[in-house]
Amino acid sequence: MKIFNKIGITGRNTKHPQLKLYLHQLISCLDANKVLVQIDSLLKESLDTINIPIEVTPFAKLEQDCDLIIVIGGDGSFLSTARRLQNYQIPITGLNLGHLGFLTEISPATLHKQITEIISGNFILDERFFLQAKIVRNSKDFDREIALNDVVIHPGESARIIEYELYIDDKFVYRQRADGLIIATPTGSTAYALSAGGPVMSPNLDAIVIAPMHPHLLTNRPLVVHGNSNIKVVVTKETSNLPRISCDGQIHLKSCYQDEIIIRKSTENIKLYNPPDYNFYKSCRSKLSWNANGYQI
Amino acid sequence: MKIFNKIGITGRNTKHPQLKLYLHQLISCLDANKVLVQIDSLLKESLDTINIPIEVTPFAKLEQDCDLIIVIGGDGSFLSTARRLQNYQIPITGLNLGHLGFLTEISPATLHKQITEIISGNFILDERFFLQAKIVRNSKDFDREIALNDVVIHPGESARIIEYELYIDDKFVYRQRADGLIIATPTGSTAYALSAGGPVMSPNLDAIVIAPMHPHLLTNRPLVVHGNSNIKVVVTKETSNLPRISCDGQIHLKSCYQDEIIIRKSTENIKLYNPPDYNFYKSCRSKLSWNANGYQI
Amino acid sequence: MKIFNKIGITGRNTKHPQLKLYLHQLISCLDANKVLVQIDSLLKESLDTINIPIEVTPFAKLEQDCDLIIVIGGDGSFLSTARRLQNYQIPITGLNLGHLGFLTEISPATLHKQITEIISGNFILDERFFLQAKIVRNSKDFDREIALNDVVIHPGESARIIEYELYIDDKFVYRQRADGLIIATPTGSTAYALSAGGPVMSPNLDAIVIAPMHPHLLTNRPLVVHGNSNIKVVVTKETSNLPRISCDGQIHLKSCYQDEIIIRKSTENIKLYNPPDYNFYKSCRSKLSWNANGYQI
Amino acid sequence: MKIFNKIGITGRNTKHPQLKLYLHQLISCLDANKVLVQIDSLLKESLDTINIPIEVTPFAKLEQDCDLIIVIGGDGSFLSTARRLQNYQIPITGLNLGHLGFLTEISPATLHKQITEIISGNFILDERFFLQAKIVRNSKDFDREIALNDVVIHPGESARIIEYELYIDDKFVYRQRADGLIIATPTGSTAYALSAGGPVMSPNLDAIVIAPMHPHLLTNRPLVVHGNSNIKVVVTKETSNLPRISCDGQIHLKSCYQDEIIIRKSTENIKLYNPPDYNFYKSCRSKLSWNANGYQI
Repeated sequence: MKIFNKIGITGRNTKHPQLKLYLHQLISCLDANKVLVQIDSLLKESLDTINIPIEVTPFAKLEQDCDLIIVIGGDGSFLSTARRLQNYQIPITGLNLGHLGFLTEISPATLHKQITEIISGNFILDERFFLQAKIVRNSKDFDREIALNDVVIHPGESARIIEYELYIDDKFVYRQRADGLIIATPTGSTAYALSAGGPVMSPNLDAIVIAPMHPHLLTNRPLVVHGNSNIKVVVTKETSNLPRISCDGQIHLKSCYQDEIIIRKSTENIKLYNPPDYNFYKSCRSKLSWNANGYQI
Repeated sequence: MKIFNKIGITGRNTKHPQLKLYLHQLISCLDANKVLVQIDSLLKESLDTINIPIEVTPFAKLEQDCDLIIVIGGDGSFLSTARRLQNYQIPITGLNLGHLGFLTEISPATLHKQITEIISGNFILDERFFLQAKIVRNSKDFDREIALNDVVIHPGESARIIEYELYIDDKFVYRQRADGLIIATPTGSTAYALSAGGPVMSPNLDAIVIAPMHPHLLTNRPLVVHGNSNIKVVVTKETSNLPRISCDGQIHLKSCYQDEIIIRKSTENIKLYNPPDYNFYKSCRSKLSWNANGYQI
Repeated sequence: MKIFNKIGITGRNTKHPQLKLYLHQLISCLDANKVLVQIDSLLKESLDTINIPIEVTPFAKLEQDCDLIIVIGGDGSFLSTARRLQNYQIPITGLNLGHLGFLTEISPATLHKQITEIISGNFILDERFFLQAKIVRNSKDFDREIALNDVVIHPGESARIIEYELYIDDKFVYRQRADGLIIATPTGSTAYALSAGGPVMSPNLDAIVIAPMHPHLLTNRPLVVHGNSNIKVVVTKETSNLPRISCDGQIHLKSCYQDEIIIRKSTENIKLYNPPDYNFYKSCRSKLSWNANGYQI
Repeated sequence: MKIFNKIGITGRNTKHPQLKLYLHQLISCLDANKVLVQIDSLLKESLDTINIPIEVTPFAKLEQDCDLIIVIGGDGSFLSTARRLQNYQIPITGLNLGHLGFLTEISPATLHKQITEIISGNFILDERFFLQAKIVRNSKDFDREIALNDVVIHPGESARIIEYELYIDDKFVYRQRADGLIIATPTGSTAYALSAGGPVMSPNLDAIVIAPMHPHLLTNRPLVVHGNSNIKVVVTKETSNLPRISCDGQIHLKSCYQDEIIIRKSTENIKLYNPPDYNFYKSCRSKLSWNANGYQI
């Protein structure tokens, strides 16, 4: 039994040397499973002559027509696609291009088996939430973006200090000087926040981690708050540079000191369809080298 | 309007030089508020002649008779009292003896005002969960204890290694060699787990942090999981020493390799009645020196 | 017995509200000790009418004429002055403006006593080394600067990655992706490097710490090498941005990928004359809150 | 040209399944190089009939007769052998049994080539210093031991606190509460101290790292001091347990509160003869997974 009629394929890493190969393997696999295939026009150049009917459309049409979107690429491509989805009813899954990732769970080597299982309904639904970052200037909404991994507030130029006040649910937490502030979802806890000393968070946790980057006070540590928290950051006048807000390291908003930067859970979730052997801790063991084969002190 | 008829006072730090002074101030305050006073017989020696009728009883009777228990002492006294409560219907609050603490929110200097407010119903209810640590040997429950801050699995002797496997909800996480493993509640996140690199967790978070102590793999980081997780630790044969399980650093269970050590949220909560000006982040600023007056790098 | 005939005073924090007050106290103290006073023309505006003969000259002349230079300001002013000295025969000491610092050891409250002692020869000589950062482009020296605290290699824009190869004494160490790389002297070990997880290093240690900023590999840790090491960093083509090299966070050089950035101990030292009660660990206790009065977990 | 007449072989990991195999390969290699072979009687059981004349003697005689000692085993065997040498004139080298190590640089796979090179004088001399830990009780020397990696002061029982005062060159540093204190050589910087947040230190650095274990003050960080420093630790009365001093995690001395524990560089060095391709940073890349093939955040 197949539960998908049409599956869309997208990606942005069009220069990857293996893209063409894996793309064709993926298309063949979908065709063998009698699923119609629609391809993001961005991938058009990577498409050789193939004896399978394929529709090439802009990304926006993929969303309208398909029952599932497969991202081919790395975690970066996955993040970018996830944020662009307007309608989070459509689930996505990721085929990596041979490099490890926390979001792209399907590997080229096992593509056929994993894709076939997902198509037959044998998958693990994994819902992840987005953060919404909103800039409020003079009490008016000025700009906004979403992030699946993390929102980072930073001075724009590196090796500069930024000073800000942090409020959780309108309660003052601290005034802090640092290189910046990372606010991450559980999904993003294994990304940038981890390098700033944040904890690994289980994907099903309804929580947000707030990790300062090189804070000037040695007692400042990462803070984990409830997923429904209203996080407000106000950059102070003491900061000489204009702050930036980066979403997933891919979208960059310009801010101004004394703006209110509000970070909250977004109202929409994204649905990941992971292969049935998916297991977050297995990914950690593999990707963070938690297997005991490494050097033991 | 007072909502308490009888309030019990307990404590265990009977050698503290200020205990007698603050105990009498507390009793006077309760009497001025027309509340009956019952005192743990442990504190008997600290009780001078006083023109207020006071009942001295064992701790167990305090629980039966009183509407609120006030712990006089530090966080250690509070933890000990919290664990001893059989019936978590009765709320508690803490009067510290002049040292900072995360659990004893009432200070001698403001005792009268804060106690009077609580008595008149002006308090913040703050429910905290316990962890239950259970040893299963040969598939049978062997021993169990609870902890408000943390459960620590360690080799008993210091400067020895312990090796164990960790499972979350029956999923294998890793086999690890370390000095031990700290499993802490949000309440305990500002205690021992913090010194092992764990994050500060907001008290209302339904989560548990698992922080390895000096793990031998540099990639092992603290892990935050859902509060309902079933955490299982199995100490391997490679560990030469007999492992211990310590609850709040106060109760120590002896275990044996290949025992299953199961840590879960306990079914009972404890109710803290905090003074109306209570604010977790204010406590952090004060107790973790998050105020900006300290040295800034 | 006085061992100084003429003492120069410099500073750059001309907007500090207490500058005028402390400057006059300092001048009076020097005059009372029968020492001639020469003042950096930058401080001219802060000089009220005073019944003491004072010479106002550019900084360069201070160096030629004086036996000692007193920096009035914070650690930032001290660093800036130290780097500008062309001839490191002349010793310096620092009078702070009321804020804690690791380099400005004389406090307004004890100014008279401490300055009088130093003038009478009762001081501790503390020699510190500089780092020299040199950019080599197409095998030719392109640019260079010195730093007393640290040299930081970073992408110029924050929230961007930089990738580089590190060599110690021409031995390949690693290829690393990070927010940047901090290379610090013992003097700088209590500054920026400390916030990146570097150790505190005793001032008399002949060593350099290399601390990556949020490295992408969790196993990368700060590295301490011999003070005579030749440290070479080559930024790779993978880095999209043009790297910057910052010295003490005050001087910023522009680089280009595939430049060789060479960091070595400079040939000249700076001589600090510290008050006789100077003690590095006392400074740590005070400035890093190592005294036991803070919150103990 | 060979520069060794007789080479001794020692080891303590007599239960290792590959010991017999590698021991015979090693003996054959030495014989092929016309070097006489003397074997620690501890290894007698691992010696099969072999058509090569071998002398079996106690370890003490190995030291007298041989020009080089080869340790067969892991870092633990190497540490143990190094400490037992009475006369540090005799150099040592290590053949690992298949597991990674920082001290045993010769691998079974390349044994013949590496040993042959060393025998022909083609090796890198690498001198490492020991720490000496001395207990002074009532102003008298009470006990002493040496360590190649680290001296650890701890409470004996785990999950207990130890409180002590630290002095460097008789200057008070701090009074600290922690799980213990690690004092490590550069050699030991990649071992236990690393798991406590200490830096990696270049082997030729004349420095000692002092790393507290889970210190109760968040501002306490590892401290690197000059190799000639006199480190004094005095355990206070507040510590309920009797402290232990562990050397390389292998030798354990019993101490008493108010003893003075003095840690200094020992007067004798050990000479490692490393294979010519030895490179500390290559070891780090391999053993700490600094190669870029691991997961990049």
